[in-house]
Amino acid sequence: MYDILKKVNGPEDVKKLNAEELNILAADIRDALFNRLTKIGGHFGPNFGIVEAEIALHYVFNSPHDKFVFDVSHQSYPHKMLTGRKNGYIDDSCFKDDSGYTNPEESEHDLFNIGHTSTSISLASGLVKARDLKGGNENVIALIGDGSLTGGEALEALDFAGSEIHSNFIIIVNDNQQAIAECHGGICKHLDELRKTKGSAENNFFKTLGLDYIYEENGNDIQAMIKVLQKVKDIDHPIVLHINTQKGKGYKLAEDNREAWHWCLPFDKATGKPTISFGSGENYTTLARDYIMNKAQKDKDFVVITPAMPMTAGLTPDLRQKLGEQYVDTGIAEEHAVAMASGIAKAGGKPLVVTNSTFIQRTYDQVSQDVCINNNPVTILLNYTSFDGLTDVTHLGIFTIAAFANIPNLVMLAPSSKEEYLNMLDWAVEQNKHPVMILIPGNEITSRAADKNYDAINTFKIEQSGEKVAILALGDFYQRGEELARQVEKKLGFKPTLINPRFASGIDEAMLQNLPKNHQLIITLEDGILDGGFGQKIAAFYGASDIKVKNYGLQKVFYDRYNPQDLLRQLGMTSEQIIEDIKKLL
Amino acid sequence: MYDILKKVNGPEDVKKLNAEELNILAADIRDALFNRLTKIGGHFGPNFGIVEAEIALHYVFNSPHDKFVFDVSHQSYPHKMLTGRKNGYIDDSCFKDDSGYTNPEESEHDLFNIGHTSTSISLASGLVKARDLKGGNENVIALIGDGSLTGGEALEALDFAGSEIHSNFIIIVNDNQQAIAECHGGICKHLDELRKTKGSAENNFFKTLGLDYIYEENGNDIQAMIKVLQKVKDIDHPIVLHINTQKGKGYKLAEDNREAWHWCLPFDKATGKPTISFGSGENYTTLARDYIMNKAQKDKDFVVITPAMPMTAGLTPDLRQKLGEQYVDTGIAEEHAVAMASGIAKAGGKPLVVTNSTFIQRTYDQVSQDVCINNNPVTILLNYTSFDGLTDVTHLGIFTIAAFANIPNLVMLAPSSKEEYLNMLDWAVEQNKHPVMILIPGNEITSRAADKNYDAINTFKIEQSGEKVAILALGDFYQRGEELARQVEKKLGFKPTLINPRFASGIDEAMLQNLPKNHQLIITLEDGILDGGFGQKIAAFYGASDIKVKNYGLQKVFYDRYNPQDLLRQLGMTSEQIIEDIKKLL
Repeated sequence: MYDILKKVNGPEDVKKLNAEELNILAADIRDALFNRLTKIGGHFGPNFGIVEAEIALHYVFNSPHDKFVFDVSHQSYPHKMLTGRKNGYIDDSCFKDDSGYTNPEESEHDLFNIGHTSTSISLASGLVKARDLKGGNENVIALIGDGSLTGGEALEALDFAGSEIHSNFIIIVNDNQQAIAECHGGICKHLDELRKTKGSAENNFFKTLGLDYIYEENGNDIQAMIKVLQKVKDIDHPIVLHINTQKGKGYKLAEDNREAWHWCLPFDKATGKPTISFGSGENYTTLARDYIMNKAQKDKDFVVITPAMPMTAGLTPDLRQKLGEQYVDTGIAEEHAVAMASGIAKAGGKPLVVTNSTFIQRTYDQVSQDVCINNNPVTILLNYTSFDGLTDVTHLGIFTIAAFANIPNLVMLAPSSKEEYLNMLDWAVEQNKHPVMILIPGNEITSRAADKNYDAINTFKIEQSGEKVAILALGDFYQRGEELARQVEKKLGFKPTLINPRFASGIDEAMLQNLPKNHQLIITLEDGILDGGFGQKIAAFYGASDIKVKNYGLQKVFYDRYNPQDLLRQLGMTSEQIIEDIKKLL
Repeated sequence: MYDILKKVNGPEDVKKLNAEELNILAADIRDALFNRLTKIGGHFGPNFGIVEAEIALHYVFNSPHDKFVFDVSHQSYPHKMLTGRKNGYIDDSCFKDDSGYTNPEESEHDLFNIGHTSTSISLASGLVKARDLKGGNENVIALIGDGSLTGGEALEALDFAGSEIHSNFIIIVNDNQQAIAECHGGICKHLDELRKTKGSAENNFFKTLGLDYIYEENGNDIQAMIKVLQKVKDIDHPIVLHINTQKGKGYKLAEDNREAWHWCLPFDKATGKPTISFGSGENYTTLARDYIMNKAQKDKDFVVITPAMPMTAGLTPDLRQKLGEQYVDTGIAEEHAVAMASGIAKAGGKPLVVTNSTFIQRTYDQVSQDVCINNNPVTILLNYTSFDGLTDVTHLGIFTIAAFANIPNLVMLAPSSKEEYLNMLDWAVEQNKHPVMILIPGNEITSRAADKNYDAINTFKIEQSGEKVAILALGDFYQRGEELARQVEKKLGFKPTLINPRFASGIDEAMLQNLPKNHQLIITLEDGILDGGFGQKIAAFYGASDIKVKNYGLQKVFYDRYNPQDLLRQLGMTSEQIIEDIKKLL
């Protein structure tokens, strides 16, 4: 097994193989992908579809002299195997060595940590510029999937490259006719047309921008790919190489259901069934899904908008179909999704934007300018906001509060139970005074009575009245606050006050003013970085008073693939550790 | 004077005019523009060029039933005059009534507060979506200048509109062949081609995206514009109407020098000379300019990148020419500019990105993902970071610290003197360990010895040792700190400690640990909002100690066209007010 792959310790070994061996190498790589993905899961379709192209890239070019930049880099597994990192795939004990994305700390063949879409052309154009300033002669190659082409950063970079770059630059558009979900947008349809005409259509998007263009129909044929890459190698101007590949190639189930197999849990190869499960019961995603479907039916002004992340709210293809005109997938175009929502709200619609928190970062300016300055009632519902959601450095949810809660007019809600979550969601969609951002809790569902109305912005809720210590436990750290309160009572012999702030973007001055009467210490707990976050607002409020404040949360750090529970301990955030602090401070 | 304009109190009055009267109206509007702009300045070229088009828009369509969205909205002055707001132009006592941008608080004919580029198509597509959900029949018209088409948000929206909208939507591309500076990018060159072929070129960018397209050569001819607008009115699908207009039309000086006359100070109509001056001496912009020109000559790895804002660093056309390959204007494409800089830094170049702070907001995700996760040594130099720089609600610089200082790895520097500014700039460009953002001070230049080396990240500097009160005065509020320290000594009889933090993105824990020994109160002063800012980090650091902290800065508010000095007083930030606070707190 892996006979050829085992011989490949770097790109130089790929170049020694003949055509037959290269094909065996492709099969070996797919076997290695199966080995890793059946056992620990990961990005499936993007990697299975790009095997031949990446073999050809390393056959034709000389990495790291020649430079590859992979968009999102979730399709870089074959590249990794070819650049000395096959053990991350064929040796189960080495799975952890591999980040799942390109990573300069792993290899000189990886130029950037990349995890968001639509960045490769921009990043690579910088490599081009530096090369030209320094008089180098290396090829610079950006690989971008068709789904990523709809992102503003990629479009800006294409526009730039077509006019302002006059030297070697190879942009490979890996057209597998799919984003995570189906593709949306004019470019997507245009790629269809280019494919149908084998690249010969008169009207050519890339050419209108000033880019040279070439089409390769057989993107999953190593020899065809070698031939076309040899043609563009050392070219003296920017060119788009449009290749046609099959997402998930080599596994029938994935070829037939590209959306389901974009990413996979550990699975059984024979049946395709996941070998682990997260329980099929209610969770915060199914709650969002059910709310959306129910609301859409009752209220024709309600519309869900997602920048290519429908599964964030559990919206499967059949549900999207059912939503009809009340569902908008903008493609990977976060900025447009948020600005469009502002327009909808202005005209009396009830827009709900759903995506992952790490991707909403792309819309800081749209949230600020298009939405919040205009105070249009857009609701943005964010998944994976928690420190124990996604732990890859490029996908952390821990910056959301610091990034957005300091934008004026935006009401950021941090629900702490199922009831609160649903009530907040419904309130946000129904009211017409505020832009609202809601952080989906990362916890298992808990249940507790909650208010229906949140018109009184920045009013915190005292869930338990006590003395000496007041615990302000925000959002999905509320349960940690409950646990801490219990432990304080048990171990320190008094009942502390427990407060559910509910609002992450402001403080309840009236309530805070009262706390010093029978409290000496305020504890804040939040699921996000401390810098710029919620707790620091509380500390600042009490800065000139005698009451003490201690903030608990995460550090301003790009954590990467950490164990969440270890991290909490390391940060001194377990109940036991906090109680030790309380003892010292009282 | 203004005979016809005076008769126009709303769009219905425009419709009553005959062809000759409409031409007189255009002349009246230009006279009114001269009246306002010669006296108080404002956007010149964009408004002079669009007079005929906006008259025709109001002649053909029925605002506010039909809906106009103006990109940047700096070209909306004629629209304002035609919708009941002519007094803001012809009556000097009413100049202040008019915001200079579209503003829903002024008129039902303005849908959004807009000041950033590239947003109109997205916002308008939201109006389209809501109309279709509600079964309305109004026309939705987005007007966008050619320079704005390079922005990612606009490109995302075009891609979306071409494929996902199947109802009335009119996108007017106002092609005046100019951004603020010259246009850059493939689209810009493509528009040239479309103009040359009068819109008949086979290869058509808009059509590749699925959009219908029509060209009008005579964008400054009212009758021609009426005719073409009547043709597209009530159209049942999205169409791009590409109009050719002359920026600055009607004033020879502006027609001949489009960059200089994009925006103007009050000026003398006969000579075009400004009637006020800001002094021709050294300022922080000329310092940046001189540094750049000098550095570029000495170091071929150094490259300046700007998203269409060269004047931010004083880079006039001749200086840009001189910089040659060491100057990159990406067009209005902030995301690409920052990501490209990361690529340049990765490959050993020394990139300096220059723009205004309000526009860097568009790059939150690029700064975080493309630059900071990769820790590439990009330097970003920001102008108009101060509360007394730009006071329009869409252009405030007061959010920069809160938005960016909480991104890990980013070193944010806040210089407080000429020497510190230049030393920091040179250090940032030369070092290769950190991404750096530098806030250009808003003050007049002051001079004071400063360190050359900032390798010791987050080390504050004690500029004056004292007792009882420590004043941490950040960046361009350092001079306020100096003044406060003098007043404290004079009025309270002791010498306070004065600290120049220099770093806005972190705290000097070692120094702060020592302050409680001989201080009871810490005062922080910062030129930005308090929420998420610098002072709150200090308050949090001392939260559990006995020392008191009081933060001074701006509120989390979208201030609009305020008097900066009044605002400071209102916020209790004058030295006198702070001294009263100190008395109470000591």
